[in-house]
Amino acid sequence: MAQRKLRGGMVGGGSGAFIGPVHRMAATLDGEAEFVAGAFSRDPVKSKSSGQEMGMDPKRVYSTYQEMAEKEAKLPADIRIDFVSIVVPNNGHYPISKTFLEAGFNVICDKPMTTTMADAKSLLKIVKKSGKVFALTHNYTGYPMVKQARHMVKSGMLGKINKVVVEYPQGWMSGLITNAGNSIGMWRMDPEIAGGSCCMGDLGTHAENLVHYITGLEIDEVCAELTAFVKGNRLEDDGNVLVRYKGGARGILYASQISAGEENPLSIRVYGTKMGLEWRQEDPNYLIVKDPAGLQTRYSKGNSNLCPEAQAAARLIWGHPDGYIEAFANIYREAYKGIRAVTAGKKIPSCDHPTAEDGLVGVAFIDALLKSNTSKSKWTRMKV
Amino acid sequence: MAQRKLRGGMVGGGSGAFIGPVHRMAATLDGEAEFVAGAFSRDPVKSKSSGQEMGMDPKRVYSTYQEMAEKEAKLPADIRIDFVSIVVPNNGHYPISKTFLEAGFNVICDKPMTTTMADAKSLLKIVKKSGKVFALTHNYTGYPMVKQARHMVKSGMLGKINKVVVEYPQGWMSGLITNAGNSIGMWRMDPEIAGGSCCMGDLGTHAENLVHYITGLEIDEVCAELTAFVKGNRLEDDGNVLVRYKGGARGILYASQISAGEENPLSIRVYGTKMGLEWRQEDPNYLIVKDPAGLQTRYSKGNSNLCPEAQAAARLIWGHPDGYIEAFANIYREAYKGIRAVTAGKKIPSCDHPTAEDGLVGVAFIDALLKSNTSKSKWTRMKV
Amino acid sequence: MAQRKLRGGMVGGGSGAFIGPVHRMAATLDGEAEFVAGAFSRDPVKSKSSGQEMGMDPKRVYSTYQEMAEKEAKLPADIRIDFVSIVVPNNGHYPISKTFLEAGFNVICDKPMTTTMADAKSLLKIVKKSGKVFALTHNYTGYPMVKQARHMVKSGMLGKINKVVVEYPQGWMSGLITNAGNSIGMWRMDPEIAGGSCCMGDLGTHAENLVHYITGLEIDEVCAELTAFVKGNRLEDDGNVLVRYKGGARGILYASQISAGEENPLSIRVYGTKMGLEWRQEDPNYLIVKDPAGLQTRYSKGNSNLCPEAQAAARLIWGHPDGYIEAFANIYREAYKGIRAVTAGKKIPSCDHPTAEDGLVGVAFIDALLKSNTSKSKWTRMKV
Amino acid sequence: MAQRKLRGGMVGGGSGAFIGPVHRMAATLDGEAEFVAGAFSRDPVKSKSSGQEMGMDPKRVYSTYQEMAEKEAKLPADIRIDFVSIVVPNNGHYPISKTFLEAGFNVICDKPMTTTMADAKSLLKIVKKSGKVFALTHNYTGYPMVKQARHMVKSGMLGKINKVVVEYPQGWMSGLITNAGNSIGMWRMDPEIAGGSCCMGDLGTHAENLVHYITGLEIDEVCAELTAFVKGNRLEDDGNVLVRYKGGARGILYASQISAGEENPLSIRVYGTKMGLEWRQEDPNYLIVKDPAGLQTRYSKGNSNLCPEAQAAARLIWGHPDGYIEAFANIYREAYKGIRAVTAGKKIPSCDHPTAEDGLVGVAFIDALLKSNTSKSKWTRMKV
Repeated sequence: MAQRKLRGGMVGGGSGAFIGPVHRMAATLDGEAEFVAGAFSRDPVKSKSSGQEMGMDPKRVYSTYQEMAEKEAKLPADIRIDFVSIVVPNNGHYPISKTFLEAGFNVICDKPMTTTMADAKSLLKIVKKSGKVFALTHNYTGYPMVKQARHMVKSGMLGKINKVVVEYPQGWMSGLITNAGNSIGMWRMDPEIAGGSCCMGDLGTHAENLVHYITGLEIDEVCAELTAFVKGNRLEDDGNVLVRYKGGARGILYASQISAGEENPLSIRVYGTKMGLEWRQEDPNYLIVKDPAGLQTRYSKGNSNLCPEAQAAARLIWGHPDGYIEAFANIYREAYKGIRAVTAGKKIPSCDHPTAEDGLVGVAFIDALLKSNTSKSKWTRMKV
Repeated sequence: MAQRKLRGGMVGGGSGAFIGPVHRMAATLDGEAEFVAGAFSRDPVKSKSSGQEMGMDPKRVYSTYQEMAEKEAKLPADIRIDFVSIVVPNNGHYPISKTFLEAGFNVICDKPMTTTMADAKSLLKIVKKSGKVFALTHNYTGYPMVKQARHMVKSGMLGKINKVVVEYPQGWMSGLITNAGNSIGMWRMDPEIAGGSCCMGDLGTHAENLVHYITGLEIDEVCAELTAFVKGNRLEDDGNVLVRYKGGARGILYASQISAGEENPLSIRVYGTKMGLEWRQEDPNYLIVKDPAGLQTRYSKGNSNLCPEAQAAARLIWGHPDGYIEAFANIYREAYKGIRAVTAGKKIPSCDHPTAEDGLVGVAFIDALLKSNTSKSKWTRMKV
Repeated sequence: MAQRKLRGGMVGGGSGAFIGPVHRMAATLDGEAEFVAGAFSRDPVKSKSSGQEMGMDPKRVYSTYQEMAEKEAKLPADIRIDFVSIVVPNNGHYPISKTFLEAGFNVICDKPMTTTMADAKSLLKIVKKSGKVFALTHNYTGYPMVKQARHMVKSGMLGKINKVVVEYPQGWMSGLITNAGNSIGMWRMDPEIAGGSCCMGDLGTHAENLVHYITGLEIDEVCAELTAFVKGNRLEDDGNVLVRYKGGARGILYASQISAGEENPLSIRVYGTKMGLEWRQEDPNYLIVKDPAGLQTRYSKGNSNLCPEAQAAARLIWGHPDGYIEAFANIYREAYKGIRAVTAGKKIPSCDHPTAEDGLVGVAFIDALLKSNTSKSKWTRMKV
Repeated sequence: MAQRKLRGGMVGGGSGAFIGPVHRMAATLDGEAEFVAGAFSRDPVKSKSSGQEMGMDPKRVYSTYQEMAEKEAKLPADIRIDFVSIVVPNNGHYPISKTFLEAGFNVICDKPMTTTMADAKSLLKIVKKSGKVFALTHNYTGYPMVKQARHMVKSGMLGKINKVVVEYPQGWMSGLITNAGNSIGMWRMDPEIAGGSCCMGDLGTHAENLVHYITGLEIDEVCAELTAFVKGNRLEDDGNVLVRYKGGARGILYASQISAGEENPLSIRVYGTKMGLEWRQEDPNYLIVKDPAGLQTRYSKGNSNLCPEAQAAARLIWGHPDGYIEAFANIYREAYKGIRAVTAGKKIPSCDHPTAEDGLVGVAFIDALLKSNTSKSKWTRMKV
C-alpha cells in the first residue's frame, strides 16, 4: 500500500540560499514528501517571491515563522504540514524550533542546534515534552560508508579504539585574510547570529558528531586553540583541538576555513588495537580498512558484503556514485519513519538520524572549546 | 513566475527494477516534474501493484503501453502526461517510442535506442516528423566535469586531438563464466531482447557517446574483437576495438562485463597536440588536465573557474559531491526545456541532451562492430 | 664469507646519456660490483673523457668496443671484467653482444635485444653456445610488487586469466608533432638505428614482457595499428594492439609517445575468473587485488605477507619507497648470481632476469606488429 | 677531472640492522664514496663478521668506536677515513660524534642528535670548534619535491603561511598494545637508550624538521599530550601537539606508532594566504599545490619546470620513481661537498643537509614536548 506524501514546510531557504535547495532536493528525493508551505525569508516580499518560484500556494507562503506556525496549526489535519525544515542562521534555530514543536510540529533543523548551552538544554526538554520528532542535519552521517564504518567499530573488527584523527579544513575564507572589508558582513562571523563560534560551530560540530557516530566515543576533555586569521573576524576561523575521550582514547580534531585551496575534505581516521579505518567525504563511497599485516582494503558502496544499514542507505549499486544529496536524504528518510509514527499516533521507533541529544552534545562541545581557548588551552571537561 | 510541474509517465520500471527508480529520482530531483501515469510491467498485476506503491491514481496505471498511449492521449491537455520515460529492455525501445511519439508525446528513452539499424533510422524519421522531444539517457554526459572536458576540447586548449582511450570495464559477469546455468535467463544475453550485442550495446555505446560528446570526433572505421566468455552466452561479454576517427585521430575503445572486480569505471583519456585530459566516472567531480610541461591540474566541480555549462550542471558547490542521480537529472532538465517549449507551442530550443541522431550513431556503432567481428576484425566503416 | 666485487665494463653510456648512469647506479647499489672498463662513446675522445670523469684507469677506457673485448680478454682472470653492460642504441645490441659473448664475457644488454628476427635468433644461439649469462634489462619486472603479481597469478588466486589490459603511454613527443625539424635527428626515429619500430620497440616490448612475466601468457596473434603522428617520423610513435593469447585470453596492449602530458605510466590489469589485479609503474610499491565481492585490497611492498620473491626484491621495509633504480638493480642482482656461477665454473642456476629467449620473443612481437600493420591490421601470428 | 672516492667508516649497522644498509647504499649510490672501516657492533665478534661480509680489510674492522677513532686517526692521510657514519641507538650519538669530531673526522649522524639538551648544546660547540662537517640524516628533506615545496614557500607563491599540519603516524606497535612481554626489550622504549621520548624522538623530530625545512617557520610554543598505549612502555608511543610558530602561524604536529595499519605516511600540508600545498612521503615524487580558485596542480619530479634544487636532487627523469634511498643519498651528496672542501683545506660551502643547529632544534623540540606534557599540556616555550 502506498504511503501518502508527507507535507513539509520550510523556514528560511529563499532564493539564492545554498542549503535551502539541498533540503528541498533531499527531502523529496524518494518521493516521500513535498513542501507545501514556507516562510522563506525575514523579508516578506522575498518570502512571497521565493514561494512563488517554487510554485507554492501563496496562501501558505508566510511573512514570518510565527505566522506560519500559528496558521498551519489551525489548518485541518489532512492539509497542514507534517514537519518543518529550519534552514536559517544559527541564532534562529532555537526560537523557531521551539515555536514549531510547541505548535505540534515535527522539526528538521540545521546544526548547530542552538547558540547557547541554556537554549540547547531548554530545547531538549521541549523536544522530549512535545513527543515530536526532532532531527538535526549532521548530514555526513547519512553516507552509506559512514554507516559501514560504524558497523565495523561496533562489531569489534578494529579492536579497542585508541586514537581518532578527524579533520575538516576548508579554504574559502583564505582570500579574506588580507581583505577585511567584504567579509565582516557575513553572518557566520557575527557573534550575534552565529553564536560564540564561527568555524567550530559550522565545521567542528560535524567532525565531533562524525567521531561519535562512528566510534560511539564520548569526549571527556578538550584542549583547544581557536584563531581568527581573517581581519576583523570576531570569531575564530581556525581551530585545533586535542581530545581525550572517555575510556582512554586520544584524538585530534581540527577544522579550518582558512586552509587555502581545500574544498570540503572532512575526513576521519580511527585506529584500534587491531585495525585502522579511514573515510573521506570528498570520496564518500569508499571506506579503507587498514590491516597491520600489510593490507589496505577498500570497501565500496552498494555491495552485498556491507552491513544492512550501509546497504539500505545506498540508492544505487556499486560504481554508481551516491552523492551529498543522497546522504542528506538519508537523514530525512530516517526522520520520516518517526514522523509517520507520530502522525499515526504510534510510538516513535528508533531512527538513525541525529537527535536533540546529539545537538546538545554539539553545543556543549563548542562551549568546552571556547572555555579551553580563553583559559590558554587548558584541558576543559565537556559538560552536557 | 513558477513553472507548472510537468507530468510524466513511465513504461517499465516496476518494483525490483534497477533503472526505473533512478529515472524517477532524476526526473523529479529539481521539482520540475512528477510521475502521474505508467505501465510498469508486461504483467498487468505487477503494473498495478507497482503503481499503487508509488501512490499513483489507479486509473492511470495501465496494463499495456499501448493502452497507456491511447488513453492518455484522450485525456484533457491539462491532465494528460507531458512525456513518457521508457525504461524497458532494448527490444522495447523502438515500438514504445514509436507509439508514444505518434500519439503526440515527448519521449525519454533508455539506450541503445533500438536493436536494429532499420528501426533506428525509422525512429529518427518519426522523431523528426513528430516535432516532439526525444532524449536518450546517455546519462554520463550529464556530469558537470564531462561538460567541462567538452568545453576545453572545443576551446582548443588541447590542440588537435590525436588519440582517445575510452574504457568501460565491469566485472559482474565474471562469476558466471564457469557457472552457465544461472545466467542464460538474463535478458542482456538474449539476442531476441538485447539485439545483436550484450556488452557493447550496454556499455560500449556509452563509451562511444562519451567520446563524441567530449571531442566531437566521428568514427570512421572500427576493427573489433568481441568475445563471449560466459558459457552459453550467445552475445559478447567483452569487446576490444581499435578506432579510426575522421580527421586522423586514433583510438582504443573497450568494454567488458567479465573484468573481475571492476565496478563501473568508465573513463576517458583524450590527447591533443598540446595537452591531455582524463575523466573517470567513479570519481566524477574532478577532471585532470595533463600538461607536457610536467603538471597535472585537477579541476573540480562547483567552482567558478569552469565553463557556464559545467557550472549550471552542478547542484552543489565545490567539495560537496554530485553523484550519478544528479548527472542523470541533468539529462531530464535539458529535455524539460524542450518539452516546455513543445507544450507552449514554441520551437524546440537547442538542448544539451542526447538525441535520436546520437541514438542512430550508437546503433550504427554496434552494427559496425558486429560486422568487423564477423569478418575477422577487418576494418569496417561505420555507416550512419 | 664476503664475495669479491664483480668487475664490470660498459659499452655506451658516456657523459650526458640517460640510461648509462642508471645502469651504473643499479649495478653497484648492493656493493656487489664496480665498473673498471668501458668504451663509452663511438667518439674516442668522448669515451676517454667519460672514463676519466668516472675515475677509471685510462688504460681500460677504450676507443671501440672491439678493442675493449679483445684487450680485456687478454687481461689476467683476476683483472679482466666479469661482465659487460651494453647501453647503446638498438642497432648496436647485436654486434656488441656477439663480440663480447664470443670473447668469453657475460652480457647485460638493453632492450630490444636486436633490430631483426635473424639477429635475434642468431644471438640466442650464440648465448646458448657461449655458456655465459645474458640478461636483458626489462627492468620493470624487477619491482617487488610485479613479482607478487606473478606469484598471485601462478598460485591460482585469480582463477583462469581471461583478459589483460597493458598500456604504456608517454607524451614527450607530443610537442614535436607540429615541429618536425628538431626531431628527425633522434635515433629512435631513425630506422637505420632503431630498427623497424620506434614506440613499440622502446615501450611496447616492455609491455609485452610485463604481461608474460606476470601471467605466463604467450601471444598467439596480434592485430595492430601503428601510427606516426610526428611529422617526418618514418617510424610509429603510437601503437594500438588487440592480442589473442594462447589458451583463449584476450588483451589490449598499447604504447604511445604522443599522449600529451603522460610521463611513464606503464600499467597492467589482469582479469581472471575469480579476481582481477592492477599494478602501475608510477606508484610501484602497491598492488591492487580486485575481488568481485566488493573489495579492492592494496598489498604493499616490504611486508611479510608477500611471497618470498617479492620480499627479497625489496631493499626497504613498508612505507619506505623503493624506486626505479632499486628495481633495475634487481635485474643486476639476479644476473650476478649467474655470473658468479659462471666465474666459479659452476652451472648457471635459475635466475629471475629476462633472458635471450625473452629477447627473441620481444623481437618477434615487433615483427608481428609490423606485419599486421602493413596488412591493414590483419590478425598475424607471432612466430618465435 | 674525476674526484677521488671518499673513504667512509661506519659505527653500528652490523648484520641484521635496518638503517645500516640504507646508509651504505645511500652513501655509495653516486660512486662518490666507499666504506673501508667500521665498528659495526658493540659485540666485537659480530663487528668482525659484519665487516667480513662486507668484504672489508679485517684490520680496519674495529672492536669499539674508540679504537676505530684512535687507530684511523693514526693512518696516513691518503688511507684513513674521510668521514664516519653513526648509525647506533640514540644514546650513542653524542659520545661517538664527539669522539670522531675531536679525532678530526667529519660525521654523518642519525637523528635525534642527542638524548639531552646539555649534550646537544655541547655537541654543537664541538662541531663549531672542529671545523668539520656534521650532517644529521633527516633524510626526508632529501626528496626532490620537498625541495620544490621549500622553493615555492620561499618564493612567496603561497603568501604568508598561516597554518601547517604535519603528521607522521606509524602502526607497527599497535600489535604490542595488549602484548607487553615482547616489546619491552626494544631499545626505542628504553629511556636509558632512547632518551626521554620514543615516538616523538623517532618520528616527531622528522616532522618538526620537515616543517622548518619547507617553511622556515620556527616553533615558539608547544602544547603536547604524549601517551604510552603499549603496556609497559615507559616512553610515549603516540604524541599530539598544538604548535605556535613565531610570527603567528598555527599548527598541528602529531606522530604515532600505534596507528594500526599505517606504514610510513609522513605528510605535510602548508596553507598560506594565497595557496596551499601538500606532500606525502609514501608518494614522494609529487607535490600538490592547492589554489582557492578551484584547482589542484600536481608537480612531478624530474621536470624542467621545477626549481634548480629539485631538479638537481632527482636522479631520474619524470615518471621514473626516485625512492627513499635516493633521497637519503642526497643528504650524503650534500655532506660530501663539505667534506671535500674540508679535505682540500677549503672553507665549507653552504650545503643543503641538516646540521648540528638543526639537531639542537630537534632536541629542544622534544624537551619542550616533555615539559608541556608533564605540566598537563601547558603551552611551553621551545628554548634552543
